[in-house]
Amino acid sequence: MLLTYDAFREAVEDDDRRRSLLFEDDHPRYVLFAQQFSRVDLVRLSASATAIRRMDRHRDGVGFLRSILSGKRVLNLFAQPSTRTNESFVAAAEKVGATVRVVSDLRTSSFAKGETVEDSVRTLSSFYDLLVSRHPDDDFATRAAWALRRSRRPIPVVSAGSGKSEHPTQALLDVYTLQYSFAERGGLDGKRVLLVGDIGRNRAARSLALLLTRFEVRRLDVACFPGHGPDPALVQALERARIELVTHDSLPKAVQTLGKELDAVYVTRLQQEWDTGAGKLGTSEDFVLAWDLRHHLREDCVIMHPLPRVNELPDEWEAHPGFVVWRQVRNGMWMRAALLADIHGATDEIMARARRLGVA
Amino acid sequence: MLLTYDAFREAVEDDDRRRSLLFEDDHPRYVLFAQQFSRVDLVRLSASATAIRRMDRHRDGVGFLRSILSGKRVLNLFAQPSTRTNESFVAAAEKVGATVRVVSDLRTSSFAKGETVEDSVRTLSSFYDLLVSRHPDDDFATRAAWALRRSRRPIPVVSAGSGKSEHPTQALLDVYTLQYSFAERGGLDGKRVLLVGDIGRNRAARSLALLLTRFEVRRLDVACFPGHGPDPALVQALERARIELVTHDSLPKAVQTLGKELDAVYVTRLQQEWDTGAGKLGTSEDFVLAWDLRHHLREDCVIMHPLPRVNELPDEWEAHPGFVVWRQVRNGMWMRAALLADIHGATDEIMARARRLGVA
Amino acid sequence: MLLTYDAFREAVEDDDRRRSLLFEDDHPRYVLFAQQFSRVDLVRLSASATAIRRMDRHRDGVGFLRSILSGKRVLNLFAQPSTRTNESFVAAAEKVGATVRVVSDLRTSSFAKGETVEDSVRTLSSFYDLLVSRHPDDDFATRAAWALRRSRRPIPVVSAGSGKSEHPTQALLDVYTLQYSFAERGGLDGKRVLLVGDIGRNRAARSLALLLTRFEVRRLDVACFPGHGPDPALVQALERARIELVTHDSLPKAVQTLGKELDAVYVTRLQQEWDTGAGKLGTSEDFVLAWDLRHHLREDCVIMHPLPRVNELPDEWEAHPGFVVWRQVRNGMWMRAALLADIHGATDEIMARARRLGVA
Repeated sequence: MLLTYDAFREAVEDDDRRRSLLFEDDHPRYVLFAQQFSRVDLVRLSASATAIRRMDRHRDGVGFLRSILSGKRVLNLFAQPSTRTNESFVAAAEKVGATVRVVSDLRTSSFAKGETVEDSVRTLSSFYDLLVSRHPDDDFATRAAWALRRSRRPIPVVSAGSGKSEHPTQALLDVYTLQYSFAERGGLDGKRVLLVGDIGRNRAARSLALLLTRFEVRRLDVACFPGHGPDPALVQALERARIELVTHDSLPKAVQTLGKELDAVYVTRLQQEWDTGAGKLGTSEDFVLAWDLRHHLREDCVIMHPLPRVNELPDEWEAHPGFVVWRQVRNGMWMRAALLADIHGATDEIMARARRLGVA
Repeated sequence: MLLTYDAFREAVEDDDRRRSLLFEDDHPRYVLFAQQFSRVDLVRLSASATAIRRMDRHRDGVGFLRSILSGKRVLNLFAQPSTRTNESFVAAAEKVGATVRVVSDLRTSSFAKGETVEDSVRTLSSFYDLLVSRHPDDDFATRAAWALRRSRRPIPVVSAGSGKSEHPTQALLDVYTLQYSFAERGGLDGKRVLLVGDIGRNRAARSLALLLTRFEVRRLDVACFPGHGPDPALVQALERARIELVTHDSLPKAVQTLGKELDAVYVTRLQQEWDTGAGKLGTSEDFVLAWDLRHHLREDCVIMHPLPRVNELPDEWEAHPGFVVWRQVRNGMWMRAALLADIHGATDEIMARARRLGVA
Repeated sequence: MLLTYDAFREAVEDDDRRRSLLFEDDHPRYVLFAQQFSRVDLVRLSASATAIRRMDRHRDGVGFLRSILSGKRVLNLFAQPSTRTNESFVAAAEKVGATVRVVSDLRTSSFAKGETVEDSVRTLSSFYDLLVSRHPDDDFATRAAWALRRSRRPIPVVSAGSGKSEHPTQALLDVYTLQYSFAERGGLDGKRVLLVGDIGRNRAARSLALLLTRFEVRRLDVACFPGHGPDPALVQALERARIELVTHDSLPKAVQTLGKELDAVYVTRLQQEWDTGAGKLGTSEDFVLAWDLRHHLREDCVIMHPLPRVNELPDEWEAHPGFVVWRQVRNGMWMRAALLADIHGATDEIMARARRLGVA
């Protein structure tokens, strides 16, 4: 059944219809939205990420991991530069044995000669077994998935960030980091998270908020830059999940008010690259997590940031027991490795081997 | 015996003298021109490409393939951007076990510091076992082959396109696709092919025409853009091979005239990037293979295009049984893998293993 | 013990204190300066480089070599373009089984978003096991080493050239080439070397001079471009090592004077890229090793050049028995492979295997 692009797009944006298009035999084939993942998916992926991380320390484990996607070739098509996400995907793919090539400058491809995006993507994909796509257009990854799905070589597609709205693997790694941090405190259910920054435009914060609806979270606190609160779609999604949304207009005030009740503070930077005429980089003190604020927080309050940071999360926080920012970076690699393996239906195999090696 | 560059160039352009310089023990060492290959070479390479393609589907086959050039390091020196050809070579080399590095921006090398081309090529080549070269200069690959041949590490050189005239591996993949498409109809001998476009400047079309002289082709039809007919050297080569050259001034008229007699139509785009002051991209309807024209053609008429395409081969053709454009793309990878293996004298080994695996 | 950057920098620049910071269990962990290596280090690394070079010719040897750093991932962070050094490091790392990624355009990373250098380096390093750094700033590699040393993943750092002053691996390969060339003449001790060019700004020449202090060299001749003699620190280091420094103001005159006494002539080019308003490339004849000068030199006088060259070492020298310029290029790869292995404490293993294969 060949859908038109518009019909495909409408279907994958519909909570009830997307799974049949984006998943196959209950594992993902096209990874376009954070919210395409169910709680079961998130738990499975997190367990696999931990298994992979632990196996990577064993010589036997390393050899097994590299056999998982051995011979598979991954194309990172990064039209929008992002060294950080790119390197994370490359490392992830190599950990599970795939080889990766990065194509970043589409001007050197045939787009410039009048070729359609569909032809370019199909041509490049001819040489690969999986496409990781990063693009400034909101619907590039969706369009690539649609074009490839119609072709005779319908390879999987993973969005590594499309436009301002979607960054599904960032949300996966953040959920994983939270679950991991709360492992001895019953997991994410019932936890209280404060998201800071530009919730409407920061893909990381927005996607994380959407994934929190998969857990028994009753309330979400957000401290938003003026004029950058949650968008209507996000508000609606939280309402449907019966999560109370509480908005604060200052981070210090929010921390002072919520204090020891907070289980995690997720700080982000002001996304100034989207603004025209932006002044100097950095965030006003209303949205800086000053080191002094630690006195209001619990010692085990988790401190996260998707990076890069400017001034909003000072260096001193490295000394705080809950500071997991560098762990987030590494978790991105483990979670993406788990995702690539899951796409190929290898998660059961990973968990079985991890149990045998005693690290599951 | 150290030839000067001019003597080397003259010798390799001479049909009678080139083989002793470009081949070694009857397998190619320097791949500079489509016309350096004999019919025997073409048949051997095509059989190997098919064997490689089939083995790539078997787990045992994949392991064997990756052992062929294991430990070899390939340098793709692409001074002229071409993501498509580059990725095809990278995939080909990796399929047979080599590792590949791409150097595309020669400005970051030492050319800018006053170094000669010969020094730059020799320095870079010091770290590699084979050079794949793409360059806007007509004689870059030939000059690189000459310089390396004189050195103490005379690694093989493969041209991936030099200037406007040579693109030997594109011609190899096109011949392979034709032979493959005609496999059950007696191969290329006696077939009637219509080449469309800028025969003088389109390296793909031009090189393919030269290779058709290796088969029992009696007649070649070309539909040429005005002012862009075959160049004198090509006309002469066809004459020597006793191939009647028939020129048409419109693709629709040619198709209407030749109709069911045609075994293949090879469409190309107008090479506007060579023109100064080119207007909008695209081809006038005189050289578009409109979908309506299918009624004049046989169902099994092969439809090819080297890509990228603009408007000259509309999307509807994907539904035609003879449409093999995406197969061409994949065939490029298989043929280049066969070529890299052949350069290393591995073709016998490939055919023997393919027979043992039952896929030869 | 967490040092401030200034304290770290001061310590590593001090001949007596640096070893405890840059080495671990007597193998290097941070490679920042040529002069951090002792004679014992240089002899060990040279022997290992030779063993690796010889093993690379054996099928068994190749397999062993690739097992040494198997699974390790190397990041070449090359903010300053240098295809030559970059490719040498990539080849070296791959020879000993590591995989390498090159990040060259830091503008595509998050520096542009206001991130600190420390955050960028730590983030990128999160995905890698070793950092090779090339940067126009004199202290970039030192700063990266300091930042990583403080972190929870203190991966090794190798400078591939920082600013104008340091290029430690070039010095290692030059010392190796000299030792190798003098293998049957008792090694570097007692040899007489003439360094030509911009001793103050040419990192290669300067670092080599510093390493000569590790051998029983009594006298060092330098033929310097006007105004580009040795800097005070170099003069002082030579004095401390009791090496007599003899300065010449013309290469031809130096060769005519020293003649058959010379064991090696190390030619370099004028570093015009550092000059503003530089005229045409090339060196005046006062610093060109004209082919006629060969009559003054011994047949076994070693002729070296770090490349790229402009006009200062004419092509005819290729025919001279002592011309080892292309061997220098290959030696760079072997020496860097030896260094990467040594950093991981693998040198004993390499020498043991080489003895078993009969190539030590």
